[in-house]
Amino acid sequence: MTQKYPSRLLEKAVDQLATLPGVGRKTALRLALYLLRQPVESTRLFASALVDLREHIIYCKRCHNISDTDMCAICADVSRDQRTLCVVENIRDVMAIENTSQYRGLYHVLGGVISPMDGIGPGDLQIDSLVERVNAEEIEEVILALSTTMEGDTTNFFIFRKLEATGVRVSVIARGIAIGDEIEYADEVTLGRSILSRTDFSDSVKF
Amino acid sequence: MTQKYPSRLLEKAVDQLATLPGVGRKTALRLALYLLRQPVESTRLFASALVDLREHIIYCKRCHNISDTDMCAICADVSRDQRTLCVVENIRDVMAIENTSQYRGLYHVLGGVISPMDGIGPGDLQIDSLVERVNAEEIEEVILALSTTMEGDTTNFFIFRKLEATGVRVSVIARGIAIGDEIEYADEVTLGRSILSRTDFSDSVKF
Repeated sequence: MTQKYPSRLLEKAVDQLATLPGVGRKTALRLALYLLRQPVESTRLFASALVDLREHIIYCKRCHNISDTDMCAICADVSRDQRTLCVVENIRDVMAIENTSQYRGLYHVLGGVISPMDGIGPGDLQIDSLVERVNAEEIEEVILALSTTMEGDTTNFFIFRKLEATGVRVSVIARGIAIGDEIEYADEVTLGRSILSRTDFSDSVKF
Repeated sequence: MTQKYPSRLLEKAVDQLATLPGVGRKTALRLALYLLRQPVESTRLFASALVDLREHIIYCKRCHNISDTDMCAICADVSRDQRTLCVVENIRDVMAIENTSQYRGLYHVLGGVISPMDGIGPGDLQIDSLVERVNAEEIEEVILALSTTMEGDTTNFFIFRKLEATGVRVSVIARGIAIGDEIEYADEVTLGRSILSRTDFSDSVKF
């Protein structure tokens, strides 16, 4: 049902809020009316924080994580294990794994997983740069920590094949996490455990 | 648990998004990362629509509904019944009642209901201006269409007392709507019916 708004400004704000994932037009209207009840300065701060983020965000040139500088704090930390790379989908997974305090190596952020349904192929992800890193840096082990979904498994296998020639050890986090769940929602104990009990990728495909 | 963000810009955007009602920090992070995947121009449009709304919104000087002009389209429509006022909490209720196509009178938007728990007293609402309107305009009936909650009932009664001296007929929409529900979520048939079968306020307090 098309809804008539008493104000074009309100309608435009609702249109924009409704573009957010998980936000329908009723919720968008509720959010717009909420903003109207707050001081003008709040909305300005709100808007500028989002524009600043979008305009000035930098991706770490090494691991492609979100950063304020050319190299992120994790990559710049020389006390971390420089020979181990943990491959994750996105920054939320980095944050989740950092919260477990079980991992002291570096990361490589793919930016997603291979998902033909969503039009995401290997070329859209940081897979080539991962292979380059393994060749250029003294990496001894690559830990695959992608979601345990079909797309994640496909991506794991694609990366495993790409890295075979380099001779690097490729491991995958233990499947203590229920199939179908996403990394970011796993509890810290399970997630930490799954990193400690990782297995060789070639073993994991037997199951 | 305090979360470490890899970017101050990201953290500020998450802080701001998490101020929205119903949005926690996990959802805020998800929304921020969604915006990062969209074109820069999208975020600029998004931000400016919200700031425009907050900075340039006008409230109708007659009914206090949200408007782009001094007098809203409903108040400016001379074909509508100028002798009937429907008192509602907010603009969402106006939109819901307009959708029923059962009402052709004017509105008066209170801006909320009396709620001591939230620190909202009669002075924070457009009640005095309602009494002024009833005195100044040729109003024959005031329909109370507030949420059927304790706060709504309290407000109904307060307005009824305030209007007693004016001699205007005060009616209340039929309680076809389940007690505890909010106006905006009622289905159109029930809501339309409840306007048609409104009863005198003095009768309704007998139940």
